[in-house]
Amino acid sequence: MIIQRLQQQIAFIVEVDKIKQIYRRNYVIGGERHETDAEHSWHLAMMAILLAEHVADYPLDVLKVIKMVLIHDIVEIDAGDTYCYDQKGGLDKEVREQAAADRLFRLLPEDQAQELWSLWDEFEQRVSLEARFANALDRLQPLLLHYNTEGKSWQLNGITSDQVIDRNKLTKEISVELGRLVEEIIEDSIRKGYLKTPQEKALFEA
Amino acid sequence: MIIQRLQQQIAFIVEVDKIKQIYRRNYVIGGERHETDAEHSWHLAMMAILLAEHVADYPLDVLKVIKMVLIHDIVEIDAGDTYCYDQKGGLDKEVREQAAADRLFRLLPEDQAQELWSLWDEFEQRVSLEARFANALDRLQPLLLHYNTEGKSWQLNGITSDQVIDRNKLTKEISVELGRLVEEIIEDSIRKGYLKTPQEKALFEA
Repeated sequence: MIIQRLQQQIAFIVEVDKIKQIYRRNYVIGGERHETDAEHSWHLAMMAILLAEHVADYPLDVLKVIKMVLIHDIVEIDAGDTYCYDQKGGLDKEVREQAAADRLFRLLPEDQAQELWSLWDEFEQRVSLEARFANALDRLQPLLLHYNTEGKSWQLNGITSDQVIDRNKLTKEISVELGRLVEEIIEDSIRKGYLKTPQEKALFEA
Repeated sequence: MIIQRLQQQIAFIVEVDKIKQIYRRNYVIGGERHETDAEHSWHLAMMAILLAEHVADYPLDVLKVIKMVLIHDIVEIDAGDTYCYDQKGGLDKEVREQAAADRLFRLLPEDQAQELWSLWDEFEQRVSLEARFANALDRLQPLLLHYNTEGKSWQLNGITSDQVIDRNKLTKEISVELGRLVEEIIEDSIRKGYLKTPQEKALFEA
């Protein structure tokens, strides 16, 4: 018989397989289907490795950032994906996600449950440099997908440029270069008609 | 304009989005569809964090293991997924994957291309402890999925227990505890009829 500690770890590893069936609002590039949370998290981890050097207060703890982005959406297994522009769904998001964290992390041995919970909490609080970078990536990655799918999901959900600018302002605070990238993508998205300004949307709906 | 270095990094990050459309032979747990390479890689990274402590020569460089598992399947964007029990496809796998590595990693700035290429190469060589652990995870993770989907993919592909035992023998070499886990899963899979022994398969086909 394997030791209980390993049994608990495997129970968690098997349970979080469900993150592969949580679909996000955005599409994979060139694809017809929505991205899963597992795919999104993989992409963020890759970005953390490659883009960390652009953070103003570099070096930062890249391993910590990677751990955060790998686990940041696990709670959606129970709580579901709350669309970032969904104000109503946002209201009870915290309560639903805390309950999910409680159930999921407790599958693990106590010390690992504590570590993951604390990483998730740090990500949500957005105070440390690592958490702020992880959150910036969590906004930049979908921006790249929206841009490379001609804004399909923005249009389907009636999103306007002011909302996207507001959601991505964190990036500029931690990195001049990444902030510039975000600005360029948003400007070009407006230019190409992928993303409407509030004025354009008002005109369109008038 | 953003600097050229960042442009190269973003070109790579956008290109590797395609890994979300490379489907593996195994199924996600409880799901009807095959797992994508991105999902598989996410799962391996989670396992690296949680299971590293079981490696005999612990501590090892967990960040390095995570980087390896995050990138190990990127070459499949060009080379496709070669099923691990496909002997014919295995013959030119190396050539196809080297060409893919060449094209993909070169999208990055020189130093990062070198780093990722060297990590991928280390993973493939399976000499360092980190590479051996990463490879063990790459075998253990599908084993967990096969077991939790009642061996669906094993049966569809006519896989027998000797093949699975052989593929997972690396695990025992780096960890007594993980080796025991693998043994238990395989034995229980045979007991439950998820996985046939070569004798059972011969009888079945007779």
